[in-house]
Formats: sequence, structure tokens, C-alpha cells
Amino acid sequence: MEGKRVKVKSKGKIFEGVVMPSRSATLILKLDSGYNIGLKDYEVIEVIDEKRDVAKLEKPKKRAGLKDVRIISTGGTIASKVDYRTGAVTSQFSSEEILSEVPELKDVCNVDSTLLFNILSENMKPEYWVKLANEIYSSIKRGFEGVIVTHGTDTMAYTSSAISFMVSTPVPIVFVGSQRSSDRPSSDATMNLICSAQTAISDLGEVVVVMHGTTSDDFCYIHRAVKVRKNHTSRRDAFQSVNQSPLGKVYYPSGEIEWLTERVMRGERELKLRDGIEERCVLIKFFPGLKPDVLEYYYGEGYRGFVLEGTGLGHVSTDWVDTIKKISDDSLIVMTSQCLWGRVCDRVYDTGRDLLNAGVIEGEDMLPEVALIKVMWLLGNYSLESAKELVKKNLVGEVNPRTIY
Amino acid sequence: MEGKRVKVKSKGKIFEGVVMPSRSATLILKLDSGYNIGLKDYEVIEVIDEKRDVAKLEKPKKRAGLKDVRIISTGGTIASKVDYRTGAVTSQFSSEEILSEVPELKDVCNVDSTLLFNILSENMKPEYWVKLANEIYSSIKRGFEGVIVTHGTDTMAYTSSAISFMVSTPVPIVFVGSQRSSDRPSSDATMNLICSAQTAISDLGEVVVVMHGTTSDDFCYIHRAVKVRKNHTSRRDAFQSVNQSPLGKVYYPSGEIEWLTERVMRGERELKLRDGIEERCVLIKFFPGLKPDVLEYYYGEGYRGFVLEGTGLGHVSTDWVDTIKKISDDSLIVMTSQCLWGRVCDRVYDTGRDLLNAGVIEGEDMLPEVALIKVMWLLGNYSLESAKELVKKNLVGEVNPRTIY
Repeated sequence: MEGKRVKVKSKGKIFEGVVMPSRSATLILKLDSGYNIGLKDYEVIEVIDEKRDVAKLEKPKKRAGLKDVRIISTGGTIASKVDYRTGAVTSQFSSEEILSEVPELKDVCNVDSTLLFNILSENMKPEYWVKLANEIYSSIKRGFEGVIVTHGTDTMAYTSSAISFMVSTPVPIVFVGSQRSSDRPSSDATMNLICSAQTAISDLGEVVVVMHGTTSDDFCYIHRAVKVRKNHTSRRDAFQSVNQSPLGKVYYPSGEIEWLTERVMRGERELKLRDGIEERCVLIKFFPGLKPDVLEYYYGEGYRGFVLEGTGLGHVSTDWVDTIKKISDDSLIVMTSQCLWGRVCDRVYDTGRDLLNAGVIEGEDMLPEVALIKVMWLLGNYSLESAKELVKKNLVGEVNPRTIY
Repeated sequence: MEGKRVKVKSKGKIFEGVVMPSRSATLILKLDSGYNIGLKDYEVIEVIDEKRDVAKLEKPKKRAGLKDVRIISTGGTIASKVDYRTGAVTSQFSSEEILSEVPELKDVCNVDSTLLFNILSENMKPEYWVKLANEIYSSIKRGFEGVIVTHGTDTMAYTSSAISFMVSTPVPIVFVGSQRSSDRPSSDATMNLICSAQTAISDLGEVVVVMHGTTSDDFCYIHRAVKVRKNHTSRRDAFQSVNQSPLGKVYYPSGEIEWLTERVMRGERELKLRDGIEERCVLIKFFPGLKPDVLEYYYGEGYRGFVLEGTGLGHVSTDWVDTIKKISDDSLIVMTSQCLWGRVCDRVYDTGRDLLNAGVIEGEDMLPEVALIKVMWLLGNYSLESAKELVKKNLVGEVNPRTIY
């Protein structure tokens, strides 16, 4: 009932107001006076269907000379703002709403938006990646010169990686989220959104993640989607590029972009969609004592894509070698490292060489999560044989040929 | 045959020399002239049993006023030096050998050493933790005033965490390794070893990891064992304290220690051993699309300890809630975050609250790997009921009550 206007009866009295979010069984009502009241024993008498103020918002006028940008909302903190003035929880995410919240966007681009999903990002699934890829593809095909995807931060790097493989793009596809919801004074939503818009109109042809670069409100980083990771549970600058410099910085509030390294330019690649995905793939993090039986379990369930998150340069215990040998002929098995930073190299120690001989493929400097999505995507679109070749290659920036750290 | 002196026949000629490490099928012999020769087709005529030079090394004299330190070797890069002068691979690790390699140690402490294992660190297993804990315990009981454990870097943080829970110690227990073997000019073995010895004689009563603090040879960090992680596959400063300041710095070559934060002091805790360990525990890293069936698989195999490496503040998909509910009564299920930095908090979003109601316990700011070892140790020593209480408590520094980053 959050955000609904209700009439309730409690201890013989009638109260009318808007239901506020509550962490307990207590009903919290924002009365028309502006005060909140908490009710433990109550009976809802009426849910009043109230037209949202949103309808009154002006449809933004398209301005000549500005690029057309599509905003696709998928849910998450950035889209789940609690408006404490009205008590309403934003569940729709129209361009009118966005522009009323962040009017600065009007000077950056012409915004058109759509609500594709409204789910918590931990509930993201590969099937949603496919729907999102198709929505992005058709948006670009319709002529949008940049795409912004608002997304919960928990799994944003997974989704943006999936889109990197699924959509070859001539324009920027920018993922943005917020770590603190808009109703909190420390919210990063506004600044992240403005910086994502600046990135969406820039000279870029890649899938990127734009989030706070520091804990101050001074700039956002533009991260290559297949090289970024959420490395903190709560900080606003939780996202970090791993084994790759961020592509650039967007200064706030100036909107100026400083590019930091090579990037794919706008128009450099053709628009293409390849949206197959094989869900029966698994990422297994190794630890001392973990038995290789789990490989056989998944193999028995029909899984043929395995990403191992090994130790150090890419190791698992020697007693895994036989099991790997058994399943590697008709499976794609990629080794990554739980160190996260650095590159896998299985040619240094004996165990590593044994693993290579058993059929393991080195994941280079790929993040384990990205390697998983690459394997899902390869097995969803190519033969096993081709997948085994392609997994070693740098397709969209997921493998950095140079070791930079 | 590495390190052995052999006589071989190749293309009608006889060669004698010491077998060097080789990455291919080619036999590399170091001849007595000092030159190396590579042989593809050869026949070994004789393996010559040669007494190692080591026997000639002088037994070090005990010096008054210096502390007695035990060095326990478990294998790994730091102990697998290839001596290119003799061609021998160091497989024994006597105090004589250590002191001949790193004579500076003689001025720091009286060294007594033992080779407990000689295994690659990816082959470490919980059963070895138990043996090591017992060796450390009896060394301290015998009067050693500090213990150094040399260990491969891949799983050093796992082993040192296990020892943190198993051994309550009045003296420093210092884990040390090297990222580059001693035969490489860039080796970190000597400096790490000297800094570990300085730590072993210091005013400290904790289990720590001592490794390079930067890529220069200027200082080592002293990391709390339950708060450190190998965060790079190959850099010498791969180890980083996570959610915790390093305890101190050991400057090189001065050996001076600068303490950076609170620590447990020498003599503060009593010597105790509690070495039970339940191996049927598993760490599961969540990703979008991962099915909860894997929980039921392990539960069916008799596992009752589960550490989930969730997303963000500690989430897994909502469709995991029912399975968790099913197994949580007689299982210990701890939520950690794949973000690694920051703290788990499942009270912010609905999914998190559902997980708590289903029986998940928040892992606070514990590293997933450390939470796993804590669960193994708790279930190996306590009732499930006690384990469920103790897992929330900070036992040996694994939970930082203050959020510092």
C-alpha cells in the first residue's frame, strides 16, 4: 500500500493520509497536515484512488541541437525514490518525472524514457538481459543517439556486461544507478544521472557504467562495463575499474568529460544484436577443501559452461584435475582468479600446467563474473568448438591485452 | 629429476650435469662448466646420488639476548628456490639453509626451523591446518617466543585465518610468503623473511601476515590474518587488509616497526588450542541466474555450514528464500558480500529482511573466505546452537565493530 492514500480506523478514530514506507507492522500515515502518525491497531476503510501529480507534469519539449537519449528504467534504488512531500513511492519513471526531479537534464539532451522492469537488482536474471538487449537495440535502431539504463547497483555490472556482449553499438549505452535513494540528503542519484546523460551524448561507442568517482560530488567515472565491479557494499564510489583504467571522468557540475585512455568512438561499430544466452553455466569459487564433485553435479544437470574462480595465478587443488579431464571434452572450462586484480597464468607452476593439459582455458585478466557471462553468451550463440576459440579472444574489451597494474 | 646429478647419453655422446627445471620435454642439464645444455633425445644412464652442500653449513650458534623464533615451512614459492649455482631445488628448509641465504636473520633472533609440509599452497586442505595448528601450539608451549610460518601465497590467507581461530596465542604467529622465487632478481623472499622475523620478536600477540607493502623494497605491512586477502595474482604487494587498517609497517632494511592501529599485545592472551574443524561446509558465490538447488545438493551430502557470497549489502535472489527456510533450522547460513569491502546489512531492502526471516545470519564485514573458515571451525568445536550465537560475535578480530571505510 506504500504511496496509496487511505482512510483507516484506529481506536475509534478515522485518519486519512498517504501510506509511508515502514520497516515494521506499524502503519505510518502522512496526514494532510504534513505530520506522520504511526498506528499499530487499525482497519483500512478505504483505499482512495488518487491521480498522481505526475499527470500534471508538462511533457518536455524537444529542443533542436540536442541529442535524443532514451532512458530505460529497470528498477533499483535510483528508481525507487520515496517522495516525502507527497508520500508517494515512485513506481513509474516517466521522462516527465525525471525532468521534474532533475531539470538540468533538459539542457543536456532530449529525454524519452520507458519503464521496462521494476525489480530489485538481486532478482535480475539472464532472461531479463535478453529483454533489455532487445529494448536497447530497437531504441538505437529507432534513432536514439544514446541510451541510459537505470539499474540497481547490486547486479549492474553483470547486466551491463551481458549487454556488452549482446549488443554491438555505434552509440553510448550508459548504465547508471545510485547507492543512496533520492530521498536521502547524501543521495548520488542526481549527479550520477546528469553525468550519465553527458556520457550518453559523448563521442563514445561502448557499454559503460557511470557512477561516483569519489565520496565527494566532484566527478563520476566512466567505467568500461566488462571491466567494472561493485567493490563496496555502501559507499557512493563503490564501483571500480579492475585491470583497466576508467575510460574517463565526467566533472560535476560542469559536465565536462576528460578521457583517460583509448576507447571505442561513436559510429565506430555497427549496430548488431546477438542475444542468445545459455543459462546452464556456473561460476565456482574454489577454496581449500572444496571437492571437485560439484563439477560432476552440475555436469549431470546438463551444464557445459564452467568458470572457476581459482587462487593466485589460477589454481585449484591437484585433485580436481581428473574430474576436469572427464568433463572438458564437451564443456567450456575457464580459469579466473579470486585475486580479481592481475592476470591468470597457468604456465608457471605444475598444477597450472596440469590444469591446462586437462582442458582448462586461461581467463587472462577477465573478472570471474564477466568470464561467466561471456561463457553463457558464447554457448548461447556459437558451437562449443567456436566458443573455445572465442573465449580466449578479446571481444569487447573484457580482456586487456596489456597488463597495466 | 630436478636438482639431481645425472649421466645421460644423447646422439652418441655422454653428458654429466645437474637437471634444471624445464617447461617442456627438453632436458636441461647444467654442466660442470657452468653452461646449460638442452637435450631432446636422450637416455638417462645414471642418476648420481650426491650429498647436498647443505650438510657442510654451520649450525647457527644461539646468541644470548635474542628471542627464540621457530620457523615452520609448509612449502610454496618462498621455500622452492632454484639454486642456479648448484642446479639443486631446495626441498629441505633447515635453519642452516635459511641463515646461509638470509644471514641478516642472525642479528634478529635465534632461528630454529622445521619442514612440516612441502606442498603447493593450492593443495592445502583443512586437515593440514589441524597439523599446523598443533605444530605451532607445541612450539609455543616449548618456549619459542615467536613463530614464523612460510607458506605459498595462494591460500596463505585461508590457512592463517584457520590458525587464528584454532590457536589462542601469547606470542606473534607470523605468516610469510613470496610472490617471486628467490632465484629471481625481483624476489621479495629475503625482505619479507627479515620483516617477518622483526614482527615475530615484536610486542604482538596475534596471527598476522607479513608481506611487501608497496612494489618498492621500502616496507612490509603487518596484516591481521583474518582481515587480509590476496588481491593481485602477481604483484609483490598483492596482500591487502580489507575493512581493517594494517596493524603496522616494518621498515626495510632498518627493521623498525610503526604500529598503525590497536593490536593484541604479547602475553595478553593465554596459549590455547581448539583444533576441531568441520569440512562439510561450503562457500557459494551468487550470480544472476544461479539456482538455489545447489544448497539442497550440499544439504543432501550432509553439509550444514553455508556461507553465501551475495551481492551488495548481502542479497541473493528472492527465489532462494524458500530453500533457505527449508534447511536453516539445522544449518548455519551466513551472508557475506562479493563486494568484499563494506558491511553486510540485510535490514535495508525487502529481500534482505526476507532472508533474515528465513534464517540467514549477517556476516557483518567479514571476508567471505574468513566467514567460511569461521563456520568450519565453529561447527567443528561447538553445538549448532552455540555456533549460531558465536558466528555473530567478533572472536579474533574477524569482525570489525567499526566501519572504517
